[in-house]
Amino acid sequence: MSLKDVLHWRYAPKRMTGAAVPEEHIEAILKAAQYAPTSMGLQPFTMILIRNREMVERIRPIAYNQPQVSEASHLLVFASYSVLTEAHIDKYLQNICATRGVTMESLDAFRRSMLRFMENSSDEAIRVWAEHQTYLALGFAIAEAALLNVDVTPMEGFDPVQLDQLLGLQEKGLRSTALLAIGYRDAENDFLAHEKKVRRSLDELVIRICG
Amino acid sequence: MSLKDVLHWRYAPKRMTGAAVPEEHIEAILKAAQYAPTSMGLQPFTMILIRNREMVERIRPIAYNQPQVSEASHLLVFASYSVLTEAHIDKYLQNICATRGVTMESLDAFRRSMLRFMENSSDEAIRVWAEHQTYLALGFAIAEAALLNVDVTPMEGFDPVQLDQLLGLQEKGLRSTALLAIGYRDAENDFLAHEKKVRRSLDELVIRICG
Repeated sequence: MSLKDVLHWRYAPKRMTGAAVPEEHIEAILKAAQYAPTSMGLQPFTMILIRNREMVERIRPIAYNQPQVSEASHLLVFASYSVLTEAHIDKYLQNICATRGVTMESLDAFRRSMLRFMENSSDEAIRVWAEHQTYLALGFAIAEAALLNVDVTPMEGFDPVQLDQLLGLQEKGLRSTALLAIGYRDAENDFLAHEKKVRRSLDELVIRICG
Repeated sequence: MSLKDVLHWRYAPKRMTGAAVPEEHIEAILKAAQYAPTSMGLQPFTMILIRNREMVERIRPIAYNQPQVSEASHLLVFASYSVLTEAHIDKYLQNICATRGVTMESLDAFRRSMLRFMENSSDEAIRVWAEHQTYLALGFAIAEAALLNVDVTPMEGFDPVQLDQLLGLQEKGLRSTALLAIGYRDAENDFLAHEKKVRRSLDELVIRICG
């Protein structure tokens, strides 16, 4: 198994057909993001899965009226933690105890290292850190969609303040970070569907220190 | 094809065996990152592939002496653009022209929109934007490694200032963002190799607006 078979097939459609993506594929995409590695395992993000016409129509103007927003089957908002709290850390540790059958005491050094990270990081540093983890998970979701031959368009072109307000994210300690439109390309109406991919060559993209 | 078959197999080894990963797998991992989607297609990052004993031994203390640094087969440094310049944009546009056989004039509106983004973004905003793209590509690299049954450990635990200095990244307009140790798990000596994965449940991780 390898991504290489789908790397050229995959692209970010600007037009989609509106056809529904099967629920099992949506769940697989969510699961890929769920199982992405994150710093210390803290998973500092939440996904908002949207398949509600009214909500989609309210999001579209916030995303500069890009057609794929309403032509997608599902919209997935990746929202990062805006704060990291002791409660987050303890909930995570409880999850480790429950999953691995270990005691809270055995995790004390790990707990202290996470608290130290939290206390030594500025609010801004925490937000940046959380966004990094979110983008890595977004990468996993996009890779899984490609493997399943489902089209997705990752989008940064939206007003995060307005989207946070619409979805009530601030109260949840979250900030919208990226949008993922999930659906099927409309190859007839999307000129990009037939274009060759443009990438920097590996010679340019990679510096090798292998001597 | 789906990531789901390897999501539980994959983890981030703290100990590796030192065995060599075949070059074709290394190239596949690089290629996955190369073909990851990036904002406007600008690919604002570079990868530094290291398989040189002396260099690895100099990096290990910078990465807090974590054993997987020297037990990996290859180290891959993901470095983000610290600046975005008109030259980057024009080089990218020339690549589009060469790849798709279109004229520079036909890309004028796109060129102006990228220049507008560059001019309206603070230095810090550009760095954050570049890091986001880098983490998404890192996600693609990790996913591809898992599909190939190659172990990788993504690492944020290193001193980026020292690593930039060692690799001469600042002069290249780059900043080290993440490390990826590529190799094979040492299951005997890594207690994590046998532990169950701990993840927030999808009920916790996903808010559904699907009514």
